Amino acid sequence: MAFQFLTNIDLDEARSNYLTKLTDNGMRAGTETVPVQEAAGRITAHAVYAHISAPHYPASAMDGIAVLAKDTFGATETTPVTLAEDQYTVVDTGDPVPEACDAVIMVEDIVNHEDGTVTVYAPAAPWQHVRQIGEDICAGEMVLPSHMRITPAAIGALLAAGVLQVEVLKKPVVGIIPTGDEIVAPTADPKPGDIIEFNSSIFSAMLREWDAEPVTYPIVKDKKADIRAALEKALAQCDMVLLNAGSSAGREDFSTEMIGELGEVVTHGIAIKPGKPAILGLAGAKPILGVPGYPVSGIIVLEQLFKPVIDAWYASAAAKPVTVKATLSRAVLSGLKYREFVRVRLGRVGGKLMASPLNRGSGVVTSFMKADGLLEIPQGLEGYEAGAEVEITLLRPESELDNVLVAIGSHDPLLDEVADLLHLADPSMFMSSTHVGSMGGIMAVKRGETHIAGTHLLDEATGRYNTAFINRYFPDGGVRLVECVGRTQGLMIQKGNPRGITGIADLTKDGIRYVNRQKGSGTRVLMDYLCKRDGIDTDAIYGYDREEFTHMSVAVQIASDTADAGMGIWSAAKTYDLDFLPVCMEQYDLLISDEAWETPVVRTLIEVLKSDAFRERLEALGGYEVKNPGTVREKF
Amino acid sequence: MAFQFLTNIDLDEARSNYLTKLTDNGMRAGTETVPVQEAAGRITAHAVYAHISAPHYPASAMDGIAVLAKDTFGATETTPVTLAEDQYTVVDTGDPVPEACDAVIMVEDIVNHEDGTVTVYAPAAPWQHVRQIGEDICAGEMVLPSHMRITPAAIGALLAAGVLQVEVLKKPVVGIIPTGDEIVAPTADPKPGDIIEFNSSIFSAMLREWDAEPVTYPIVKDKKADIRAALEKALAQCDMVLLNAGSSAGREDFSTEMIGELGEVVTHGIAIKPGKPAILGLAGAKPILGVPGYPVSGIIVLEQLFKPVIDAWYASAAAKPVTVKATLSRAVLSGLKYREFVRVRLGRVGGKLMASPLNRGSGVVTSFMKADGLLEIPQGLEGYEAGAEVEITLLRPESELDNVLVAIGSHDPLLDEVADLLHLADPSMFMSSTHVGSMGGIMAVKRGETHIAGTHLLDEATGRYNTAFINRYFPDGGVRLVECVGRTQGLMIQKGNPRGITGIADLTKDGIRYVNRQKGSGTRVLMDYLCKRDGIDTDAIYGYDREEFTHMSVAVQIASDTADAGMGIWSAAKTYDLDFLPVCMEQYDLLISDEAWETPVVRTLIEVLKSDAFRERLEALGGYEVKNPGTVREKF
Repeated sequence: MAFQFLTNIDLDEARSNYLTKLTDNGMRAGTETVPVQEAAGRITAHAVYAHISAPHYPASAMDGIAVLAKDTFGATETTPVTLAEDQYTVVDTGDPVPEACDAVIMVEDIVNHEDGTVTVYAPAAPWQHVRQIGEDICAGEMVLPSHMRITPAAIGALLAAGVLQVEVLKKPVVGIIPTGDEIVAPTADPKPGDIIEFNSSIFSAMLREWDAEPVTYPIVKDKKADIRAALEKALAQCDMVLLNAGSSAGREDFSTEMIGELGEVVTHGIAIKPGKPAILGLAGAKPILGVPGYPVSGIIVLEQLFKPVIDAWYASAAAKPVTVKATLSRAVLSGLKYREFVRVRLGRVGGKLMASPLNRGSGVVTSFMKADGLLEIPQGLEGYEAGAEVEITLLRPESELDNVLVAIGSHDPLLDEVADLLHLADPSMFMSSTHVGSMGGIMAVKRGETHIAGTHLLDEATGRYNTAFINRYFPDGGVRLVECVGRTQGLMIQKGNPRGITGIADLTKDGIRYVNRQKGSGTRVLMDYLCKRDGIDTDAIYGYDREEFTHMSVAVQIASDTADAGMGIWSAAKTYDLDFLPVCMEQYDLLISDEAWETPVVRTLIEVLKSDAFRERLEALGGYEVKNPGTVREKF
Repeated sequence: MAFQFLTNIDLDEARSNYLTKLTDNGMRAGTETVPVQEAAGRITAHAVYAHISAPHYPASAMDGIAVLAKDTFGATETTPVTLAEDQYTVVDTGDPVPEACDAVIMVEDIVNHEDGTVTVYAPAAPWQHVRQIGEDICAGEMVLPSHMRITPAAIGALLAAGVLQVEVLKKPVVGIIPTGDEIVAPTADPKPGDIIEFNSSIFSAMLREWDAEPVTYPIVKDKKADIRAALEKALAQCDMVLLNAGSSAGREDFSTEMIGELGEVVTHGIAIKPGKPAILGLAGAKPILGVPGYPVSGIIVLEQLFKPVIDAWYASAAAKPVTVKATLSRAVLSGLKYREFVRVRLGRVGGKLMASPLNRGSGVVTSFMKADGLLEIPQGLEGYEAGAEVEITLLRPESELDNVLVAIGSHDPLLDEVADLLHLADPSMFMSSTHVGSMGGIMAVKRGETHIAGTHLLDEATGRYNTAFINRYFPDGGVRLVECVGRTQGLMIQKGNPRGITGIADLTKDGIRYVNRQKGSGTRVLMDYLCKRDGIDTDAIYGYDREEFTHMSVAVQIASDTADAGMGIWSAAKTYDLDFLPVCMEQYDLLISDEAWETPVVRTLIEVLKSDAFRERLEALGGYEVKNPGTVREKF
């Protein structure tokens, strides 16, 4: 099989070679003629010239009378001129100025007489208060140059110029072929091993944003003949083809071979991550892109390699990406062999723009949904340290970043509800949460990287929550601890307790699979403490090293029977209808720096915490003790 | 009639009152449920929670074998562990990890034996190389909060979470009613007095950009009963109504009265220019906006008063406008009584961002098409001086402004062709031309406001073009004069010469109507010179004060018989099929400062001037003498 081993070609080089090949082969937009009214957003094929002038007749610019200016020459306050009825015409704004006239006198500057004559007290200058023919557009003038996007105002200008139809560049029709034996159409009830085919829906929406017309073909099994037939059909019907999945060098990869048979594989394997196994192929002037199956890889490949193809089709320049400087909140390591694209969340905290890297898994499509920006780590660089100043390509308007409430710290599902209520309270505000555990949150506040941090750290010595830790890390104060909720921690176990777990001591029993939270999370601190207190050897607990980052993800492992028990909060257990062995009631507070306290996003947050709506949401979640959320528990 | 006299209420106050009334009356978006695949760009009605986890089964993250980690414990290079056939399962990336297994070992880390057993040389950690259930999304988690725009990636996340349908906010249906006796549907052949109805097409395109659904009703005559019937029908069928024209206090204004009869007029008359006669009305929770008839007024009123209504419908915050500081190239005067909105073109010249005000006529729709930004002159301010630093709201991305070639100076239709060729040569480049005459161009170069200036100034003493003026205004040099074309100037007269004009001397004859160019234009300088030379009293020429700014607009007056003669270039006469009495061949050059000379836009311009394509365009225009365009004639 050809191209079994992937190349590792530089992205810019691969893209530029590919575009050159495509344009050399004659790829360019055809044209079509559309009614001007339906041309908004389309691109002109050629320069468009005016058929008629606008205005197309001399029009009165005022309410008044149209006259021949010469008839009024010599008029003054003392020697007024009186015009006979046939020497003037009453006109409203927009009315044509009669052929015999060449000026308009405003209604307030004339005196009407009963016999139909009017008197004027000043001479009219020729063409005063007359909108000349062609004031806006002269017939024959260029209204729009070639290859320009038609705006709403341009539609008006074209119609004013008597242009009713306009030749525009055709949108490229892009066939999307999803392939794979395990791929199924979207469903709420997939079987294990089924992979839900949502890439074509993502790609279609992206293509529409880029002024292309997607056509999604039915899912094709991993069989050479089927792939070949689908590709032939799409090539016959479309201008461009995306062949999704089957682009790695795995055992069922027939994409490269079939593209080679029906056309040419220009490149297979590009030095980017994610997206390395992309295939750049073509059949004559028609590009065929082999897109990796993981959604994040696919999105990156489309943005980096297919958007430029569409730009080349339209012979248009890509909009320059908008970049900002930001401070990395965590270190990001990268391989030397690739240029890596990392999605980040952004938030402005105390004047500093902070970038928090999101989950880099190729399958984690939510990372793209949550991303505010994209960090590129160049090939040959090992990554960036925490605190490094990096350049971020913005995925949302910079002005919105000022209204993002940044929350870095301990996870609780109530944070999602707070985010929802915050945006409902003020639609200009958004919340960005990163779950790094209570300790991580305290450190983020200390480094000035977050507005708020959820925290629930038990001090073993005092049995009190949070205070001891804050005293230790903020010896000079400068922060507030704001009450949020009390919540019940306990062991989540499977419905009906099939393993007969009665407490933490049972977790060391043979056959019991535990699932833990990550180090530094308050829940992990609690579990470590409980084990120590009860003299339990954590090495004897199977799965104690298996770390999840949220209460929900611990609960879901138990619900799907890949684990038997995990420590977590009652609301998470309730969501999955798990049994629950309560261990303690703990205080979940928000740590807020004095600097952040006065910001509009934090002011609105406090209002939300104090609202009835918040109490209702907590009641629905369940397992919370709600006293006075939003009040300052202690000022340090 | 109620509200005959317009109020002059502050824009912000009027808008805020109106929005409060509308929301108090219950205006808000309804909801509808749509398939997720069709939800791109829609706004979520409520928070959306995941139905299933993604991945929804433990999936292999590598090609290799799935094992129970415990079976491999103790394996080392020296004490390998061999697994029986029933102790492992071959898996590809994405395959489910079988229930009995909890880890994946990569294919490169195992040795296969012929008997079906495999040997491993290191222990597998539980859950290594396994994508845990819920790595991306946990069932029950919030995928999207309320009132969020659904992006392509969000479509993927929703489908991954088993969400196939989503409740979104309904788009407001906006009825547009064009009114007026003189209004006609778009045509290339209007009769005098016909006003082409293109506002509804502009408004429809704007509304679609704002996520509203326009419905345009047939044109309604200026009759109370007709307007009332149309308004009743639109109110029954739509969520919002735009009643176009008929909103001034003129004699045929029934809009206010009919809105008052069917609902309530909240405000009539707002302290903005253009757009003063806008009517803010409503019927219950349905807004009815009376929109002035002039297109520029209408666009401003929609942007300032109707876009906020749509934002309120969606309970969403308007995107913050992006503003820049720029230097005004000309003074702008404004009335004290209004807040005025002035369209400007922008260009970066020598690091300075220059704003050139466009024609402020309410009927000049091209000004909106050409505008790069909007200047607001606050109420109570008389305007700004030339050279003032002002704040401009951007209408196009700032990055594009770096690639705008600014041309301020003498007009020639060839400049439009150059603009077209420049954009075709480099799609990232645009050209912005302002016609202020040759003298204005020279001054703009001197003030550093333009890259290039078209100039054709005849020095009476030497009979040479341009040089003497440049020596006078640039005594220290620093500019280049670049050859463009020779062009034939002459008297444009009506086809067949019905008035028997044989030369300039005939222009003083009774009944001959002349149309002139503006002072400071090279053509005016030429005409003044010719009259002086031949001893002609320009006061005796009827219409010598009638000034147009371009050759085309002079030609169009003659073609439409509002003038008999005008001085201009042959190509303009040719466009309108006019007769032409040649007077002289003149040199039309481009003046370019040394600073601008090395910029990419000017480099590309020079290439365009030297191209065959430029010669072909000139040939099509006609009347030009083309020698070596693009070569430096003289360096000063």
